[in-house]
Amino acid sequence: MNYRSIFHILGNLLLLVSIAMILPIVVGIYYNEPDALVFIYTTGLTFISGKILKRFKYEKTGLQYKDGFIVVTLGWFLVSIYGSLPFIMAGIFDSPVNAFFESISGFTTTGATVIMSLESLTHTILFWRSLTHWLGGMGIIVMTIAILPQLAGNMHLFKAEVPGPLHNRIKPRIQETAKTLWFIYIFLTAAEVLLLWLNGLPLFESIIHSFGTISTGGFSSRALSVRAYDSVMIEGIIILFMFIAGTNFTLIYDLLKGKIRRVIMDEEFRLYILILTISIILISINLNLHIYNDIRSAIRYAFFQVISISTTTGFANVDYDTWPPFSRWILLVLMFIGGSAGSTAGGIKVIRIQVLLKKGLQELHRLLHPRVIRKIKINKKVVSESVSTSILGFFFLYITVFVIASVVLTYFGIDIISSISAVASTLGNIGPGLELVGPLNSYLPLPEMAKLLLSFCMIMGRLEIYTILVFLFMDWY
Amino acid sequence: MNYRSIFHILGNLLLLVSIAMILPIVVGIYYNEPDALVFIYTTGLTFISGKILKRFKYEKTGLQYKDGFIVVTLGWFLVSIYGSLPFIMAGIFDSPVNAFFESISGFTTTGATVIMSLESLTHTILFWRSLTHWLGGMGIIVMTIAILPQLAGNMHLFKAEVPGPLHNRIKPRIQETAKTLWFIYIFLTAAEVLLLWLNGLPLFESIIHSFGTISTGGFSSRALSVRAYDSVMIEGIIILFMFIAGTNFTLIYDLLKGKIRRVIMDEEFRLYILILTISIILISINLNLHIYNDIRSAIRYAFFQVISISTTTGFANVDYDTWPPFSRWILLVLMFIGGSAGSTAGGIKVIRIQVLLKKGLQELHRLLHPRVIRKIKINKKVVSESVSTSILGFFFLYITVFVIASVVLTYFGIDIISSISAVASTLGNIGPGLELVGPLNSYLPLPEMAKLLLSFCMIMGRLEIYTILVFLFMDWY
Repeated sequence: MNYRSIFHILGNLLLLVSIAMILPIVVGIYYNEPDALVFIYTTGLTFISGKILKRFKYEKTGLQYKDGFIVVTLGWFLVSIYGSLPFIMAGIFDSPVNAFFESISGFTTTGATVIMSLESLTHTILFWRSLTHWLGGMGIIVMTIAILPQLAGNMHLFKAEVPGPLHNRIKPRIQETAKTLWFIYIFLTAAEVLLLWLNGLPLFESIIHSFGTISTGGFSSRALSVRAYDSVMIEGIIILFMFIAGTNFTLIYDLLKGKIRRVIMDEEFRLYILILTISIILISINLNLHIYNDIRSAIRYAFFQVISISTTTGFANVDYDTWPPFSRWILLVLMFIGGSAGSTAGGIKVIRIQVLLKKGLQELHRLLHPRVIRKIKINKKVVSESVSTSILGFFFLYITVFVIASVVLTYFGIDIISSISAVASTLGNIGPGLELVGPLNSYLPLPEMAKLLLSFCMIMGRLEIYTILVFLFMDWY
Repeated sequence: MNYRSIFHILGNLLLLVSIAMILPIVVGIYYNEPDALVFIYTTGLTFISGKILKRFKYEKTGLQYKDGFIVVTLGWFLVSIYGSLPFIMAGIFDSPVNAFFESISGFTTTGATVIMSLESLTHTILFWRSLTHWLGGMGIIVMTIAILPQLAGNMHLFKAEVPGPLHNRIKPRIQETAKTLWFIYIFLTAAEVLLLWLNGLPLFESIIHSFGTISTGGFSSRALSVRAYDSVMIEGIIILFMFIAGTNFTLIYDLLKGKIRRVIMDEEFRLYILILTISIILISINLNLHIYNDIRSAIRYAFFQVISISTTTGFANVDYDTWPPFSRWILLVLMFIGGSAGSTAGGIKVIRIQVLLKKGLQELHRLLHPRVIRKIKINKKVVSESVSTSILGFFFLYITVFVIASVVLTYFGIDIISSISAVASTLGNIGPGLELVGPLNSYLPLPEMAKLLLSFCMIMGRLEIYTILVFLFMDWY
């Protein structure tokens, strides 16, 4: 372990956070809110902490293989801890656990909240809260595309096809890749802000909801979430950008370059659309039969919620927890599937589901034709055995973590539906769940230990489980 | 496809069923019940059907590879259909769907019932109902140990290690193996009947509950199940035999031969005990804290229900559906795990969970030490990559079938907990679930389509999914 280099990098990370904290100061001054002062303090504190950590010398030997896991894991924790300082200093929460929960929920782009009365918060705090989403989204893009594939080996399709479809197709070097993706990320955010603003949303709320959309986070400035606007136009814009944010960013790059054929032929993209379409149709029919006589209302709510949950954003334009079991159960299943790889979405990811389904068909084929070997292909490229096995393993681990965490949650006396949906939702980085943690409720009433567990689920999901497991068992194994 | 040979074998199977139907006639005559006549008719009908099918000539070429899947799948369906005839003719049900459900629930040793008032049934019908369990258990032993491994390839640990631990250790030939295992099966049944009878249960009820125990089926002659006796002694005997019935039968053979060391060193057996022990401890504590002030009651009920659910038997000595979420959720998870391979228990099976866990550790190790290859071993024997991959695939398929079936079930308006527990319980061949299908309820009120779906789940689970999938997709793929 190369602790000096690790601390040095973490120091750099905190310096970036301290720079980001300047933005809420600007917002606070603009709105003439005393919370601006809070961010002056926290900027200073974070900056000094960063500087101290950075004094550890980055050694010539650089990072060792295992150090990568430490940097990634500690990085997310550290950023979330410093990110929770403004909530504590502004007196939003009595307990630091709540502040940490809100902060990690922001940075992991989960969007689960422990704040009951959003409308009572200052612009400064609301802005910071949503900014954690947006920064988290940026972090995820770099991490999932540039860092994790090198660490977690063939957990990821990218790595296995080194130099990989992504690296090849966009830019050869990591830094360049990150810059390109960030450009797309910023461009999309700006486009959404503009569209929302032009369609009547105040600029501030446009920014808040754009941050929540592009990062697939889901923090809103309204307790009723998007439902507060009750506008089909606003919902339509948000649906469009949630859908884009749940798509592999390399495809968006292709699209911007005019390579439309490549986009529409992409297998993961097609399955992503298929899952969304089927879910929307099924839920629309179910809602039309049992809740909304008006088919247009049924489609409107089904459309928004399916996209919102599938992309792991978590905005709500209706209290879907009052829906029939069929619709609620489909939403819960969608929480597990999640969005596309290479996006800011969470969950198991569509491409993994695709490989798993193909693996199932391969096994079936092998049973019927024991002597014929059939390879799994995605986008006409062979998926190696080791990659598909790793993905199977990932699926098992995901379910195992889900089961263990939900068992612990029920121990606090929380009912089964609330427990499983809370774990599915935090592990998949969605945000709201069902029952106790439904879209109109918050995670506030849960016991402190439950909230810590769910915070852990958020980071487990975000770091694709293996990273955390390796971090935890590094010294024992 | 070699249809003539297939029909010939199915004919033989029906002849066996018709012979078994003679037993209820004896019971009916003994108790002087008119239902004896029902079985005279059904014996005749089944016998003639068998004879007709047997007239198809068993061709010299014998069965082809794919024919095996057809025989196994059609065999279970056909036997269940003929097994449902007595229920229909005795006027137990209005609908043939209910009769089929009860029959397939018996033969697959599931134990889910659609009969509300068990006490109003004649001895003759009760005996047949429980006999379907017992015959099903015999069928399972032959099938899982002798037939499936040859069909489903390395889905099974046995096959992969051909001639395999089982074949080697007991007898070299399939027929001999089956005979040995059947001897154990009959011996265990007789022992349990004797013990229950000596401890005060009427002989008839001793037989019914022994049939239900050794087959891990769970049909009782009482609506309250084992709770009706409210006897710690009776419960203790049933616990012992449920535990044995959920153990790999080759281990029981070893034990009878005095090879105790081999039994206690067996890795699956150890994990099986570990899972039971941990579950009993956790649930006992939870029950003691929330329901029973008396720790002995807490242990008594936790012990019985954990063993009953884990071994996929499904007897109840208490209405566990009134337990706190924690205990209920653990029971639901145990439904997925199931008992040991090579037993009459259902579920995913302990040994598969064991391989999956070891696979997870292997991946972790590979991430930490990318250049070191670590093999998975069970009982000091290497588990090949293809076996462990198949098991991972099985896990994914199991969860997929569970998700699809539960989504369909919620479509009928059945609440989420009832739906997921009904599917988990039928797919794992347990019997009762939670809420609507809790231990004191029956599956009767569910819609007919839901009952057909759950019947299908029972056979899916019993035939380890692949067999059914191959059967369904044989001509398309």
